[in-house]
Amino acid sequence: MLYITRKFHFSASHKVNNPAWSDEENLRVYGKCANPNGHGHNYILEVTVAGENDPAIGFVMDLKELAEIVDRELMTKVDHKNLNMDVDFMAGINPTTENLITRFWNQIESKINSGSKKLYSLRLFETEKNSVEYRG
Amino acid sequence: MLYITRKFHFSASHKVNNPAWSDEENLRVYGKCANPNGHGHNYILEVTVAGENDPAIGFVMDLKELAEIVDRELMTKVDHKNLNMDVDFMAGINPTTENLITRFWNQIESKINSGSKKLYSLRLFETEKNSVEYRG
Amino acid sequence: MLYITRKFHFSASHKVNNPAWSDEENLRVYGKCANPNGHGHNYILEVTVAGENDPAIGFVMDLKELAEIVDRELMTKVDHKNLNMDVDFMAGINPTTENLITRFWNQIESKINSGSKKLYSLRLFETEKNSVEYRG
Amino acid sequence: MLYITRKFHFSASHKVNNPAWSDEENLRVYGKCANPNGHGHNYILEVTVAGENDPAIGFVMDLKELAEIVDRELMTKVDHKNLNMDVDFMAGINPTTENLITRFWNQIESKINSGSKKLYSLRLFETEKNSVEYRG
Amino acid sequence: MLYITRKFHFSASHKVNNPAWSDEENLRVYGKCANPNGHGHNYILEVTVAGENDPAIGFVMDLKELAEIVDRELMTKVDHKNLNMDVDFMAGINPTTENLITRFWNQIESKINSGSKKLYSLRLFETEKNSVEYRG
Amino acid sequence: MLYITRKFHFSASHKVNNPAWSDEENLRVYGKCANPNGHGHNYILEVTVAGENDPAIGFVMDLKELAEIVDRELMTKVDHKNLNMDVDFMAGINPTTENLITRFWNQIESKINSGSKKLYSLRLFETEKNSVEYRG
Repeated sequence: MLYITRKFHFSASHKVNNPAWSDEENLRVYGKCANPNGHGHNYILEVTVAGENDPAIGFVMDLKELAEIVDRELMTKVDHKNLNMDVDFMAGINPTTENLITRFWNQIESKINSGSKKLYSLRLFETEKNSVEYRG
Repeated sequence: MLYITRKFHFSASHKVNNPAWSDEENLRVYGKCANPNGHGHNYILEVTVAGENDPAIGFVMDLKELAEIVDRELMTKVDHKNLNMDVDFMAGINPTTENLITRFWNQIESKINSGSKKLYSLRLFETEKNSVEYRG
Repeated sequence: MLYITRKFHFSASHKVNNPAWSDEENLRVYGKCANPNGHGHNYILEVTVAGENDPAIGFVMDLKELAEIVDRELMTKVDHKNLNMDVDFMAGINPTTENLITRFWNQIESKINSGSKKLYSLRLFETEKNSVEYRG
Repeated sequence: MLYITRKFHFSASHKVNNPAWSDEENLRVYGKCANPNGHGHNYILEVTVAGENDPAIGFVMDLKELAEIVDRELMTKVDHKNLNMDVDFMAGINPTTENLITRFWNQIESKINSGSKKLYSLRLFETEKNSVEYRG
Repeated sequence: MLYITRKFHFSASHKVNNPAWSDEENLRVYGKCANPNGHGHNYILEVTVAGENDPAIGFVMDLKELAEIVDRELMTKVDHKNLNMDVDFMAGINPTTENLITRFWNQIESKINSGSKKLYSLRLFETEKNSVEYRG
Repeated sequence: MLYITRKFHFSASHKVNNPAWSDEENLRVYGKCANPNGHGHNYILEVTVAGENDPAIGFVMDLKELAEIVDRELMTKVDHKNLNMDVDFMAGINPTTENLITRFWNQIESKINSGSKKLYSLRLFETEKNSVEYRG
């Protein structure tokens, strides 16, 4: 079994905000991350696929094909966007890193899994210091 | 003459937007950077001060003092903020990297310059790939 | 299950040294790492906590709370310190990366674990090239 | 159990190429990676060894010893080399990252494993964006 | 005056080789860099343009336009290529970093310079440790 | 004129300390950097040499030769050392970054300068955030 990883970059704005709470409650819980006019990040997403090596090709999966899937299903929807307002699959959902990564998984898993190949892990960096990993 | 540099990080949202133009014109000129609901970045700011070494202290300038000035005069105003809406010294100004850096200079230069010490350069990275430097 | 990671930096000196051995023996085994007057590093510590996403908050754990625990229980004790002489929980212990990381684990595990949240992994980089990971 | 990792750098050229196929077929499958005169990379290899901490030494394994093994068994054979033409253990094998990493494993595993110490993982970065991990 | 910088990545193979010398002489002078079958690198090129801020646009130069010029005039010619054999403007020239960077300058300077905008600096990294800068 | 840069790493301990002052005075001025038992860093030194391209060789200066000079004249004296106690050319000098870099310059300038080649700049990073540059 081999684990192939490709890194993606996107720049987005968000405001950490539970829509069921008042602004005051959000600021109390989330501090500056709940700034009412939002803030933003250069996110980094690492996508890892597990699978066997195809003996003819010498690849688990062509990384160009993986990049096309992730670009089409995710990057075009989140890059240079407002994660609270512009992303269909995040509608009504508080865009914390934890909430983003599980929805990202749902957007791409079925497009990647095939034969021995399985989406194995997503790791999303909000900043160079802070990240979340999800393995499904 | 010695050149001391300290790196600062801040996360902010912005929309590249000339307020004198229509939304269509802004999108035509700035593409995805003019997304109406904005996007964001983890900016990195490198502040360089030139000066002579103080023989008693062995510093051009105490980096803690430099950090206090830049934190107080800049970072508290831009970190976790919307650069179009939340920053007093950017009011009415299109928040491109070029427009940000010259206003950043004006915010901190007089607080740093003293004796042989002079603000020498600011370098602002919008992403790991793109940066602007200004030397006054 | 989600895995959240936060990165911490600290600068410390140490000398790799088995106190039961002579200086000659230490130099023979550890080479330049046993320099009698010590040397030092900018260490990086990655702290990973595993847990379920809190549906109201959208966090496994507030990273500000994690940072406060690690700063209070570890960083104030090791940052800008001599790891052979200044750290209570390393008294009499050879400050190799392996010996540091297991004691770091003991310092913070009980402060972090709560409900579904568990300290999952510590990774300590002595240099950009060399690191040790511990999972308890 | 502790996991120690050391990072190695090497610079090599290769052409992704299935020798059983025509040039046209290789270019169709591999695109620019099959450029007939080759291209190259600054590869990064992360070698992770799992084991128990030796109580006398305070190491899972001396990283100098690990570096000597990997330098002797791998780095001298691949650094500043052409991976299609110069490397005995890659003769006749298409030098994809997947094919490289499994052969790298075979070159060093038996030299590292001893007592509780086991080669645990190799991770090979072809570029900063693309990597493959293998755990045997 | 502002200085804008954009970073580009390309992967290429080369052999450091003075064609006027014998293989033995090349190996004597260049060591492993003259390996007859070549080796390769992930090069990084930083392109810096100096100019005044356009008050209507808020840019010295649109970085998308700069990227299009550098991609068309340079990157398509060197990325995933053999620098000794595949690059028209390097024909018969020993592909050291110094020789590459001055030819890179000639390929793009006239396409960038316009009005107050001038190509100010190129910096080419062969590895993370080694780089050359040229200012024309 | 070309500017070639090579990066060096060394790990050292130090205590920022003016020997003419009491411990209290040093702690008041330097804070945690004056910890009596010291602390340490993974320093990075960037050495830049300016010169003309040698047309036969295609180098300003062979980087192997530059590395040998800097390793012999500097790295062997500071790597894995205590900068207050172990370094002859720092005897009695407060090891701030400013004081280190000017002495580093004196150690290597005459060994590098020759014909058109001149030591142009040293840049010393104490941490990833803090650096000092000196141009003689």
